[in-house]
Amino acid sequence: MSDETAIAGTSGESVRSRTVGGTETAGHTAAQREFLAELANGLEDRQLARDEETLTVYSIDQGPTVERHLPLAVVWAESVEDVQHVVRSCAAHHVPIVARGAGTGVSGGAHATEGCIVLSLERMNRILDLNPDDETAVVEPGVINAELNAAAAPHGLMYAPDPASYKMSTIGGNVATNAGGLRCAKYGVTRDSVLALDVVMADGSLMHTGHQTFKGVAGYDLTALLVGSEGTLGIVVGITVRLKYLPREVHTIAAFYQDFRNAAAGVLAVGRARVQPAIMELLDNGTLEQLDELHGGDLQKRGKSLLLIQTDGFGAAAEADVVREVLAAGGATVTTEASAEAEMLVELRRNSRGVEVDDEFRVGEDIAVPRSRLVDFVAELEAMAARFQVRLKVVAHAGDGNLHPTFWMDRVDPATDADALVRLNAALDESIRVGLEMGGTITGEHGIGQYKLRWLGLEQPEPVRELQRRIKELFDPQGILNPGKAI
Amino acid sequence: MSDETAIAGTSGESVRSRTVGGTETAGHTAAQREFLAELANGLEDRQLARDEETLTVYSIDQGPTVERHLPLAVVWAESVEDVQHVVRSCAAHHVPIVARGAGTGVSGGAHATEGCIVLSLERMNRILDLNPDDETAVVEPGVINAELNAAAAPHGLMYAPDPASYKMSTIGGNVATNAGGLRCAKYGVTRDSVLALDVVMADGSLMHTGHQTFKGVAGYDLTALLVGSEGTLGIVVGITVRLKYLPREVHTIAAFYQDFRNAAAGVLAVGRARVQPAIMELLDNGTLEQLDELHGGDLQKRGKSLLLIQTDGFGAAAEADVVREVLAAGGATVTTEASAEAEMLVELRRNSRGVEVDDEFRVGEDIAVPRSRLVDFVAELEAMAARFQVRLKVVAHAGDGNLHPTFWMDRVDPATDADALVRLNAALDESIRVGLEMGGTITGEHGIGQYKLRWLGLEQPEPVRELQRRIKELFDPQGILNPGKAI
Repeated sequence: MSDETAIAGTSGESVRSRTVGGTETAGHTAAQREFLAELANGLEDRQLARDEETLTVYSIDQGPTVERHLPLAVVWAESVEDVQHVVRSCAAHHVPIVARGAGTGVSGGAHATEGCIVLSLERMNRILDLNPDDETAVVEPGVINAELNAAAAPHGLMYAPDPASYKMSTIGGNVATNAGGLRCAKYGVTRDSVLALDVVMADGSLMHTGHQTFKGVAGYDLTALLVGSEGTLGIVVGITVRLKYLPREVHTIAAFYQDFRNAAAGVLAVGRARVQPAIMELLDNGTLEQLDELHGGDLQKRGKSLLLIQTDGFGAAAEADVVREVLAAGGATVTTEASAEAEMLVELRRNSRGVEVDDEFRVGEDIAVPRSRLVDFVAELEAMAARFQVRLKVVAHAGDGNLHPTFWMDRVDPATDADALVRLNAALDESIRVGLEMGGTITGEHGIGQYKLRWLGLEQPEPVRELQRRIKELFDPQGILNPGKAI
Repeated sequence: MSDETAIAGTSGESVRSRTVGGTETAGHTAAQREFLAELANGLEDRQLARDEETLTVYSIDQGPTVERHLPLAVVWAESVEDVQHVVRSCAAHHVPIVARGAGTGVSGGAHATEGCIVLSLERMNRILDLNPDDETAVVEPGVINAELNAAAAPHGLMYAPDPASYKMSTIGGNVATNAGGLRCAKYGVTRDSVLALDVVMADGSLMHTGHQTFKGVAGYDLTALLVGSEGTLGIVVGITVRLKYLPREVHTIAAFYQDFRNAAAGVLAVGRARVQPAIMELLDNGTLEQLDELHGGDLQKRGKSLLLIQTDGFGAAAEADVVREVLAAGGATVTTEASAEAEMLVELRRNSRGVEVDDEFRVGEDIAVPRSRLVDFVAELEAMAARFQVRLKVVAHAGDGNLHPTFWMDRVDPATDADALVRLNAALDESIRVGLEMGGTITGEHGIGQYKLRWLGLEQPEPVRELQRRIKELFDPQGILNPGKAI
């Protein structure tokens, strides 16, 4: 990670940031000053910042940084028209735009690029409509995932996609990354809940895609193309989502195993019983250790791995009975008492986000493999950690075969252990290679962003990538929308 | 419907078909003869037909025809390489290709266009893989929907999307139209079950999109873009689908109403109880009459409208109890006995496909509206039928707000009732207008094909359509893939 923070002109010249406080213009080229004046002209003072502290905060999301840039300015849109104004100004001056929700992404999809504007949508946070009979809601992109759920709950409804960041992340950000979450195995990912989008295109025009109905097949599925496109094809300013029924009954089961691979096998055993849990989370010993440290529990004493399963709906109790039976048969110690403790564990898992932020001594991934390969992949990960002499911690949305392995080590002095970081990244690369070899993907739910571009070529051959570049070019001929991300 | 069957040269000249029997070349231009020779050169004799009977059979699907053309030839691909050969031959000679599964589409998506080759994929009908632990299958496009389900059932799995044509239609055709079906409200449409595609592109190259895992967000969602594109962007030659769990328990409820609008209100009542049925079919009096005629029942005596509901899974019995309770409270006569009769009715409904084929005295639609507008829309349809003096019959996948209204009349002599057909089509147009006004879509699941292009401009403004045309151009610069369809 570079400590340098430079503001670069779009014409190529780079100048050190001399912006100090407020919205002073300093250290910019004449073209940039002209652009910034035009940009500011259509906005209120509260909507634009150029002080170094703000630029720094908004220059990255929670993903690892490869090369750090400060944006020219941060703009907070408060309306669709604001977004259109920003896009038109940027288009006229060839200035890149990095749109951003809460900045909770972990792949660098919202990292500032050279000479860009960061366009924050967090203030466009109104729930415009919530129709309990249609079972739909229309929201602005800055609505927090948990807030939509809070609004839907009194109607017996929920917005299903629940990334671990659901208390902080925005629906717009979830749409940009096609976010997954804990209960995806049963309820689907973000794309499966999005019916329609309002999108500001690269020329500043407003386009509506999709339909307000559950089903609709008129023309190409532009909505699905935009979901997960990480702000590179257009800027989502309105989202119509389908809501699902809030389950009346939820049963939670905690199953402790003495061995991680047996726990992974438990996932397959539940599948073979043809029970579809809402949540099926797999935690290894390293994760239990971390949870004990953070919350003072004794999880490690009870097992070396934990499988957390939640069933929900009218059949929750009967499903939970089957789950307990097959897990016990597979050697697990299964909670049979009221599931209060297990529920608490799910909450801990849900909120473990934040301690997962990568730094240079911790590298994380988001590989998904076909479910039948879960046990093999977990075994391979353990072997890699041993071979590269690094530590391993794994949590997995196991129902989806989506693993978040983290290779890590205690902070070392590069002088005494020069190749520590090399070993760490070698383990990471190896995990990617093996995951792909098993028929997996390099990203189950976090997105490519900026960070994972290095591996995308391993998953997608050149013609597939070229086709995507041409789609990008069609939507954004100038290449101003979040350049250098996603594809 | 025109009785004319013409074979047209790609250079514009049109000749009457003089092709008689076998694979004789007659009545073609020199360029066409050269193309046909090249095409035949890479195929076995059994794979190509040019006799008039075959050309006629393969010139249309089950959709209404606007302008009928015979193809130059029908080709049956038996491998990916065959498809590549056909596409390359057609690309070299600028010959349009209409790919086709079982031809059960009802929007004319597989109607032959002028001077085209019809490429049948029905012989590519192998299930290449079915992995019970991965809960996925890989199939060739010609696999019949019901056959995949038959193969999956012994493993406790099912392929969820179940269009009424499921005993005849192919998975490839289902993918081309993003087919819906009866149990979509709970299990999603085709797109929600498709994980990956193998696609022959317009230049004959083979591309792989998507992922073998349940989740995957690497790059743009090309898979979703291709699903529902009706063979206009590429020819799907392989499909990886996610399978769902075959429910162990199914409960079926038949609820008779004396009034269609009350039955529609029952759909909302079930929704308000936050019960998610697998199937929720609404049948009006006209449909009951038809079923009685076909099967000799007494449905009409029992009510003027029927709501058929199926709950499934571990909670099926408890869900069925709630459904019965809310429907009875809404004035329905609800079956309380063992649901054998209700199940039989669902089977009748499932297999009512075939009698629904439109002709000039029967025009059908596929409108979907937001669920809250179901009752209003049904009331409007009844008013339209009265106003235009035509008869009405409606079945609806009511859980999705997706209606199949049919306006019809007994065969009339145009000499005595000159404006009969005008009234019929006026009612149809009016139903489209009102459906759109209510926030609906012109097609919930059948696709635009050729027939619904006339209304697409009412739903999608020009910039959205232009964007789709440009995507089409990007995938298919020559415009040889199913031209004049879908967008």
